[in-house]
Amino acid sequence: MSLLVVGSVAFDDVETPLGRRERALGGSATYFSLSASQHTDVRIVAVVGEDFGEKEMGVFKDRPIDLHGLEHRPGKSFHWKGAYQWDFNEAKTLETHLNVFADFHPRLPETYRGSDYLFLGNIAPELQLDVVRQMATRPKWIALDTMNYWISGSREPLERVLKEVDILLVNDGEVRALTGERQNARAYQRVREMGPSVLVVKHGEFGVSLFTPEGVFAAPAYPLEEVVDPTGAGDTFAGGFLGFLARIGRMDFPALKHATLAGSVLASFTVERFSTERLETVSPREIQERLTLFSDMIRVEAL
Amino acid sequence: MSLLVVGSVAFDDVETPLGRRERALGGSATYFSLSASQHTDVRIVAVVGEDFGEKEMGVFKDRPIDLHGLEHRPGKSFHWKGAYQWDFNEAKTLETHLNVFADFHPRLPETYRGSDYLFLGNIAPELQLDVVRQMATRPKWIALDTMNYWISGSREPLERVLKEVDILLVNDGEVRALTGERQNARAYQRVREMGPSVLVVKHGEFGVSLFTPEGVFAAPAYPLEEVVDPTGAGDTFAGGFLGFLARIGRMDFPALKHATLAGSVLASFTVERFSTERLETVSPREIQERLTLFSDMIRVEAL
Repeated sequence: MSLLVVGSVAFDDVETPLGRRERALGGSATYFSLSASQHTDVRIVAVVGEDFGEKEMGVFKDRPIDLHGLEHRPGKSFHWKGAYQWDFNEAKTLETHLNVFADFHPRLPETYRGSDYLFLGNIAPELQLDVVRQMATRPKWIALDTMNYWISGSREPLERVLKEVDILLVNDGEVRALTGERQNARAYQRVREMGPSVLVVKHGEFGVSLFTPEGVFAAPAYPLEEVVDPTGAGDTFAGGFLGFLARIGRMDFPALKHATLAGSVLASFTVERFSTERLETVSPREIQERLTLFSDMIRVEAL
Repeated sequence: MSLLVVGSVAFDDVETPLGRRERALGGSATYFSLSASQHTDVRIVAVVGEDFGEKEMGVFKDRPIDLHGLEHRPGKSFHWKGAYQWDFNEAKTLETHLNVFADFHPRLPETYRGSDYLFLGNIAPELQLDVVRQMATRPKWIALDTMNYWISGSREPLERVLKEVDILLVNDGEVRALTGERQNARAYQRVREMGPSVLVVKHGEFGVSLFTPEGVFAAPAYPLEEVVDPTGAGDTFAGGFLGFLARIGRMDFPALKHATLAGSVLASFTVERFSTERLETVSPREIQERLTLFSDMIRVEAL
């Protein structure tokens, strides 16, 4: 099954209490595709500049990731610089250079237009809507990520694209900004009225809550001894979650629960190292082992 | 089985975005005992003033709560005034009048000294230690709650009492202040060196993590449509958690997992209304129903 992702591919300068990296590989489509490709075929639509070379392209090689939609344009790639304090709750953005990303107009290669599943990463809602319109057939599901910048600044186009969406993935602050509701159980009612039938709320180190027509689920984050760099955790989760759903071709409640665990496990690898360092090397067996440990951990046996 | 709690019984003035109450019943021992008494016999050691009358005493009546250790002294009861913003993360303390609580020296009635289990609520570590020394026999387990005020200001006596403790219940900020570790999995190693073999970290609306010699567990908070007043949630959780453990007389990993759910469910009732309003009226059947719903919610069925 093929999962199409539109988003950013970038260079990140990151500093955390445990170290720093410069010009490390980053971007939502990067984390998403490396994660999702552990489960299914991925097709990327994104843009990079002339500074995105063989070395960076090599990270995607030998994985089921189709790069025909990765546009190379004159200029520099999207470059983000950020820092985290000791509590890792939120990145402090120090610099954002959109570069070639400023004029990004996603264009789907002909071969992408029949993709089975679609993930609209965090870009302008107008562009997300344009991607939906370029699809030759309606995907089996469409998932979407967004941020407060679009929620407050591009409300109307965001509401239009949400009508097309089945699965919304956001964090606590975003779902509150979008719905005006403090409690996620009530926010879910508002989200359903907007379009998506499934709401995934990411709580960072406190895990994930899942709201579906069949019921509510929540799972903690996979417990780690050390978090080195939280950058990309949310996109990695989305990749593991949606990649798993694409692989099994189901979207019922049990499937969504398992997908939640799959996403959390992938994210746990990402945050153990800087950038995509760990996500690049993790093996299917390591993923499976951690998934088994995680399932055992949250199981409540009868007394 | 008898569970002895030492802590505060107080009047609270509380304001949240959803309303306000003045001179409402509060205090750690109050929430704890109302919650724990749903599962086991509770004995309170605390102090109140002359303003604590028939009406307040009536709340504890017709429950398995022994009040022989509730000392009545000349003066006023402990009085706390606080407010919550929209996000409910943290109470802003507006006023604290310790009143009779300022000279509180817990004295255990003779009949209390053989209690099976002991919960040391959040009071000065010197007093907690004094309570341990007044016990005629070592309880089957001792649990303890504390706060940053004691962690930074009474470190040495806190470390002494922790040597006597089996179960430590704290929130994220407290476990970090106590151990200097950001990741709870690593903080647990430090906590074990200090004494307690079980660490319960309360994440507020994001649930609870449990660290034991047999493994790690985490559960979300019970999902509610509306939180009215988070005051007392942590003490109510402790009461449900420890009351359940006392009832079943086990402290193994499966028992601790079930106790976590029991504590979370009791806390979900507390926060639905102001003060102890909901905790006073909740029935065993309502508790059992919510516990069944909660267990179903977090269960991950095989695919």
